[in-house]
Amino acid sequence: MGLVYADLSMSLDGFITGPNMRVGNAMGDDGDRLHEWASAGKSEAEVEAFLEQRLASLGACVFGRMMLDVGIGPWGDEPPFHAPVFVVTHRPAETIVKAGGTSYTFVTDGPDAALRLARQAAGDQDIAVAGAAIVRQYLHSGDIDELRLHIVPILLGDGVRLFTDAEDRSVALAASGSVDEGGVAHIVYRIRG
Amino acid sequence: MGLVYADLSMSLDGFITGPNMRVGNAMGDDGDRLHEWASAGKSEAEVEAFLEQRLASLGACVFGRMMLDVGIGPWGDEPPFHAPVFVVTHRPAETIVKAGGTSYTFVTDGPDAALRLARQAAGDQDIAVAGAAIVRQYLHSGDIDELRLHIVPILLGDGVRLFTDAEDRSVALAASGSVDEGGVAHIVYRIRG
Repeated sequence: MGLVYADLSMSLDGFITGPNMRVGNAMGDDGDRLHEWASAGKSEAEVEAFLEQRLASLGACVFGRMMLDVGIGPWGDEPPFHAPVFVVTHRPAETIVKAGGTSYTFVTDGPDAALRLARQAAGDQDIAVAGAAIVRQYLHSGDIDELRLHIVPILLGDGVRLFTDAEDRSVALAASGSVDEGGVAHIVYRIRG
Repeated sequence: MGLVYADLSMSLDGFITGPNMRVGNAMGDDGDRLHEWASAGKSEAEVEAFLEQRLASLGACVFGRMMLDVGIGPWGDEPPFHAPVFVVTHRPAETIVKAGGTSYTFVTDGPDAALRLARQAAGDQDIAVAGAAIVRQYLHSGDIDELRLHIVPILLGDGVRLFTDAEDRSVALAASGSVDEGGVAHIVYRIRG
């Protein structure tokens, strides 16, 4: 069985988007700075190769509804996931099929059901979960194996926080990683059962 | 002239103490876990030598009042600072002199005045500032040169946050550091003017 992971860039003050995140402003004001490390000093081809490599083991995704709503435009007609995406939502909708193996399937019976579908689809490949609320939910339920965080040396001041919750306290972590030349800490936090 | 710095251990979710921090519970519930990295695998003598070395270049300190109130007991009769400490407060009080060169002087005319006194006392040695509110104040005023952060792989869920403020957004950082074997990221964030 593959890993369930969330891969997120977070500002030093704990935000995974800037303020005023909404459809048309997917990363919030200044939030694009969170992802600059992934392309810094790289050619366009290198950036694409790096993204492909990061997503190579991906068998399925589970996204929150907000994540899909702000992302579906920018990800375009051939999204980078090349895997089925299960979207946790209260609003039923028809599955949307994109080019290159990505589809968006709307799951209305909760995060457990979405993860079950993702596990079936992924086989022994990995499952990426995304969207702050859904990541926290799986963190608390013990369903996430790894948080892959990139702690970026910027202060955003406001936006969507990854950690908001006294319940986070129950989660035990083991960590390893490194700090790159731009001062971004790339750390894998394994969740201990 | 020496550096003005703050040296802080912070949980992955952004807290520099656990919940319920007060006199008699200086680090808050579970907050002692923030500092375990400094003594992990070391003998008592090695811990002491490590602390001495971290404080060797210290010429003066500026603390917030809360920091002094919760710390003055634990720091004891010969505090580790061996330098004058200027305490920003609204309540005037007589200077308290401890053994080994540490004194606590209460400054009632604001953080700028406290830092001026600290600079006079420190000469070309460094100045450590401590206490979340006072660190933020100096961060916003541009008086801090370095944040030396130790990002510890624990989630505290609640407590005193280092970063709380939309104003943090104005601060530009340059960072370098490393991640130790226990997964603690030791990063120096230099504030750019």
